[in-house]
Amino acid sequence: MKKLKLGVIGTGRIGKVHIATMVQSVPQAELVAIADTNLVSAKEVAKNFGINKVFSNYKDVFNLPEVDAVAICSPTDTHAQYIIDAANVGKHIFCEKPIALSLDVIKGSLKAVEKAGVKLMIGFNRRFDPNFLKIKQLVAEGKIGDPHILKITSRDPTPPHPGYIEASGGMFMDMTIHDFDMARYITGSEVTEVFTKAAVLVDPEIGKAGDVDTAVILLTFTNGAIGVIDNSRKAVYGYDQRVEIFGSKGMLCADNNFPDNHFYFASDGVHRSLPLNFFMDRYIEAFTTEMKMFCNAVIKDLPLSESGNDGLVAVAVALAAKKSLLENRPVKLTEVL
Amino acid sequence: MKKLKLGVIGTGRIGKVHIATMVQSVPQAELVAIADTNLVSAKEVAKNFGINKVFSNYKDVFNLPEVDAVAICSPTDTHAQYIIDAANVGKHIFCEKPIALSLDVIKGSLKAVEKAGVKLMIGFNRRFDPNFLKIKQLVAEGKIGDPHILKITSRDPTPPHPGYIEASGGMFMDMTIHDFDMARYITGSEVTEVFTKAAVLVDPEIGKAGDVDTAVILLTFTNGAIGVIDNSRKAVYGYDQRVEIFGSKGMLCADNNFPDNHFYFASDGVHRSLPLNFFMDRYIEAFTTEMKMFCNAVIKDLPLSESGNDGLVAVAVALAAKKSLLENRPVKLTEVL
Amino acid sequence: MKKLKLGVIGTGRIGKVHIATMVQSVPQAELVAIADTNLVSAKEVAKNFGINKVFSNYKDVFNLPEVDAVAICSPTDTHAQYIIDAANVGKHIFCEKPIALSLDVIKGSLKAVEKAGVKLMIGFNRRFDPNFLKIKQLVAEGKIGDPHILKITSRDPTPPHPGYIEASGGMFMDMTIHDFDMARYITGSEVTEVFTKAAVLVDPEIGKAGDVDTAVILLTFTNGAIGVIDNSRKAVYGYDQRVEIFGSKGMLCADNNFPDNHFYFASDGVHRSLPLNFFMDRYIEAFTTEMKMFCNAVIKDLPLSESGNDGLVAVAVALAAKKSLLENRPVKLTEVL
Amino acid sequence: MKKLKLGVIGTGRIGKVHIATMVQSVPQAELVAIADTNLVSAKEVAKNFGINKVFSNYKDVFNLPEVDAVAICSPTDTHAQYIIDAANVGKHIFCEKPIALSLDVIKGSLKAVEKAGVKLMIGFNRRFDPNFLKIKQLVAEGKIGDPHILKITSRDPTPPHPGYIEASGGMFMDMTIHDFDMARYITGSEVTEVFTKAAVLVDPEIGKAGDVDTAVILLTFTNGAIGVIDNSRKAVYGYDQRVEIFGSKGMLCADNNFPDNHFYFASDGVHRSLPLNFFMDRYIEAFTTEMKMFCNAVIKDLPLSESGNDGLVAVAVALAAKKSLLENRPVKLTEVL
Repeated sequence: MKKLKLGVIGTGRIGKVHIATMVQSVPQAELVAIADTNLVSAKEVAKNFGINKVFSNYKDVFNLPEVDAVAICSPTDTHAQYIIDAANVGKHIFCEKPIALSLDVIKGSLKAVEKAGVKLMIGFNRRFDPNFLKIKQLVAEGKIGDPHILKITSRDPTPPHPGYIEASGGMFMDMTIHDFDMARYITGSEVTEVFTKAAVLVDPEIGKAGDVDTAVILLTFTNGAIGVIDNSRKAVYGYDQRVEIFGSKGMLCADNNFPDNHFYFASDGVHRSLPLNFFMDRYIEAFTTEMKMFCNAVIKDLPLSESGNDGLVAVAVALAAKKSLLENRPVKLTEVL
Repeated sequence: MKKLKLGVIGTGRIGKVHIATMVQSVPQAELVAIADTNLVSAKEVAKNFGINKVFSNYKDVFNLPEVDAVAICSPTDTHAQYIIDAANVGKHIFCEKPIALSLDVIKGSLKAVEKAGVKLMIGFNRRFDPNFLKIKQLVAEGKIGDPHILKITSRDPTPPHPGYIEASGGMFMDMTIHDFDMARYITGSEVTEVFTKAAVLVDPEIGKAGDVDTAVILLTFTNGAIGVIDNSRKAVYGYDQRVEIFGSKGMLCADNNFPDNHFYFASDGVHRSLPLNFFMDRYIEAFTTEMKMFCNAVIKDLPLSESGNDGLVAVAVALAAKKSLLENRPVKLTEVL
Repeated sequence: MKKLKLGVIGTGRIGKVHIATMVQSVPQAELVAIADTNLVSAKEVAKNFGINKVFSNYKDVFNLPEVDAVAICSPTDTHAQYIIDAANVGKHIFCEKPIALSLDVIKGSLKAVEKAGVKLMIGFNRRFDPNFLKIKQLVAEGKIGDPHILKITSRDPTPPHPGYIEASGGMFMDMTIHDFDMARYITGSEVTEVFTKAAVLVDPEIGKAGDVDTAVILLTFTNGAIGVIDNSRKAVYGYDQRVEIFGSKGMLCADNNFPDNHFYFASDGVHRSLPLNFFMDRYIEAFTTEMKMFCNAVIKDLPLSESGNDGLVAVAVALAAKKSLLENRPVKLTEVL
Repeated sequence: MKKLKLGVIGTGRIGKVHIATMVQSVPQAELVAIADTNLVSAKEVAKNFGINKVFSNYKDVFNLPEVDAVAICSPTDTHAQYIIDAANVGKHIFCEKPIALSLDVIKGSLKAVEKAGVKLMIGFNRRFDPNFLKIKQLVAEGKIGDPHILKITSRDPTPPHPGYIEASGGMFMDMTIHDFDMARYITGSEVTEVFTKAAVLVDPEIGKAGDVDTAVILLTFTNGAIGVIDNSRKAVYGYDQRVEIFGSKGMLCADNNFPDNHFYFASDGVHRSLPLNFFMDRYIEAFTTEMKMFCNAVIKDLPLSESGNDGLVAVAVALAAKKSLLENRPVKLTEVL
């Protein structure tokens, strides 16, 4: 099989995830170069994974003729420019979400991508989780008939540092954005209106940083379905990621994953392990499938399951959610998009 | 044990449920008389359950000196007047929900009850379901810490006849009213604001009757928690009644009840029975516990777990939900109450 | 509907179960008389359940012309004689297990029953548990194809008093006898050979009384299937009653029943309630269905699902199990029957 | 970290599993050479996994000075000799089960290992399954108190070719051997006696090859516990691998693993995916943990969790099981060991 030669920009937490995945689990990937403004970090990662070419400037990766595609894992505020630069030198692009916090900026990147005719995939890894893939497939097969009600639970085990929050664009843009994408993916329909209730219930520091940590968000869809997402920055029992979709012919639920399937019957109750506690544990298979899909799509020139437009719309829904919260009223997507 | 001598008004579906419960499962209850404007129906019920005194006029039951308490199971539009009449003759009262569709009318009944010093219990039977009782108790014990997010799923197996809908006051007043009560009961907190999205997705006839059949309702509570109720008039897999409450120290979920616990592992998947399909199957134990609680409270002069005020507030939330739907905006409870 | 007029002999624990069931839950039953050598106990029971005729001598019940059928709930050593006496006066008979501890004595009773042409049902109530009924039905429908492996788990929450053990005939005759019947019922096949390993692991007093408290019993069946029963007199987590049957086309499992379906996700694990702890809680529905089946069968002259032969064979398997334990070798049923 | 330099002998199904694990998932392992009498197969494997040194003669691997340890994945009848040869040149040894079909031959190998002072680990990979690891750990912590009853279910999704059966030594030696090891591992106790019932219920060809395909095997342990293993060569619903252990303070159960956690509620029942169907899917994590444990133990000179004695005793129990089947009587382990 022809391998896809890849460069990775950014060796932070998510960069390392994609690097490890490419090296260890994606036979179609050949990681040839990485870059990070923190060259010390980049060199350590390169050593651990046996990567020969390491740079501090991302352009050095983009300019390597042997590189077929790049994975942009740098901070959010660099994504849009890097997409444009990569497109301009004809590289296919995998980019972490969100593309940017501004819709105009995103639209600018997408134009460059379209003009260059390269492929762009946004890192909505949860689409490739085996549970959600199964739900998506069964909904698409008509197993539940017409979708009526969608419920997404998405709760993190621990909140990020308040310092992280400001740069991230806030909970809707950083965390719920996955759920907004999941909502469109599972229902196969577009969001038309958003209503948000949110609060600071976990940590007052989050409130001081201008964000919320608990939210329930009501969505309406073009196909008539109604959806609800609930979020918390802190579930003491672990990473809680569930989906339920109800329709005219039935209901599909995707439960959490657990580290083992033991049950302990003691005199004080029946006990089992907590759900997997970390996004890497829960989504390790999803990250691998995602990268395989990206490599296959580029190698075989296939359409991508996550397009640049998915990245744009998810941000638009996040902006509408924020606006709804601030104005305490339902906000139509057309108001922001 | 001293028995409570009871009269029942109304021998329709819910009247029969309470009559059977009193006769077969509540040792503290002695059913001495029943009344129904349809005397034929009343006489048949009396015969089946061995009740000696049968009337067509409810006042004949109220005037029996040996009757300690009455259960009002007649149509909704009679509840308020019957409560007043029963209070005026000093009978304790069990009344089916809703008390009335108008808050002023309800307040009038409650004043009569207060003046007479009799006990009034409203038929929110689900409070006595073993699953919800357990959740309530564990929340009250602080097991989840401060409540943050409440989720109630309440879906019927089949919609009522469109003819029934108009008299019932619509889905919020007839069906969701149980969930509004459950929301207050589980969180131990009052609803402050309601936002509703609803649609006619099950049967256009329901829309023609002026009602909806699918809804997602967002609630905010005085204690800061956010709640969401999802309703459907038709779940093809049966009666779906679940509660989930998430807080600072954990989460509690109450699953459905199933007719048996068999699992069938075949070559095409693992299969189990559907949840119980009918409200009487799911809540049979709840109806019994409810009536025992009522009888005990009257016999021993104990406070009631469901007061007249609960009946009033649940109707107020239903009115706010309807108003929110019509005006597509969040409605504060103070706007209607 | 014509009602079956019943007399009950014995007002101990199991007698009270059947009396309560007849009075409260079986519309086809009319309990007209009870007897117990302990007349004080009998009178109290009669008062509680509103029964007019109370005797100390069982024959007084048998001689009542209005009595159609009797339920024998007296100690095991009286069963055989009472069956003969009831048959001789033409009463239909429901008798608790075991009929007797001796196969010859049992055969004598069955002969009297056959001669009299009355119906005899043995109290293998577990056959009517909704879980096991479902398994039985699905096996009979061929859902698992040919049965290959049967597994029955049957563990009590607490051991009986050592004093009880001697009169009971020991664990195989008192407790495992239900499982021996279940094995034949679920597989629809006869036991041909038994091999037993057992020990005293729960309480040395049980060993001093000449019995065991822990056992694993291997069964072979005429249809080629192999079965295994595991017993304990003490499961600290409650009453553990499960069945699994595996065949050429699949597997069926029946899990325990739980008092509620709540799940508690805390920081130290996921917790749920223990299984129901008491045989009356687990099998309350089974006792009711059993008595309804008996009444229906007598009223409508239908064949019984549990015949006298079932009572005979279950005792034979228990005897073989004991013999196998004592001789540490597989014992064929033909050696004892 | 110092890496362990490994050679692998045998590139059949299980050899490929270990090779892939070493290359992709065990950072402590460096695979330097492989050998297979089928050089074509070996070369293909070497190419796929980027291994430089490939031989047809296993001794060429053993003689490489840089090789620290060897993994013996060749046919069973070569294991004993290869162990001796590897020990004689001072290599540490990982060997697939069973070491040999004869206890004397096994003892000969173990003597060579002891004399050479090298480490020997037998491939009982299931010990490293997360479910069984958890059970083992909790039993060792005393969570169930004294073990009373052990139940192991082990069923394959499809039988091997009859041709395979003869070389494998039959079901007990090839398949149940894992369960015999698991029984000792979980209980932490030795088997003293075995009683076997088995039959040919899946495929008559298996019977013609002199083997059985369905078995229930009763074990007694030195600590007083009683165990039962049930096996089938064909579970149409997939690979069924469960353990249950019951003791004085509780019960632990390990359920199967499933490919996803979706539940589908349709009008005809609730459905979920089948358990994982293939040993590699179920035990992929176990194979990785096992190889990591082996590498760590050699690198850091730690004791091994699976010793050569474990390989010896498991074969002894398999021989006793076969003898018990042939003679239809319980067989003491001392009769064969």
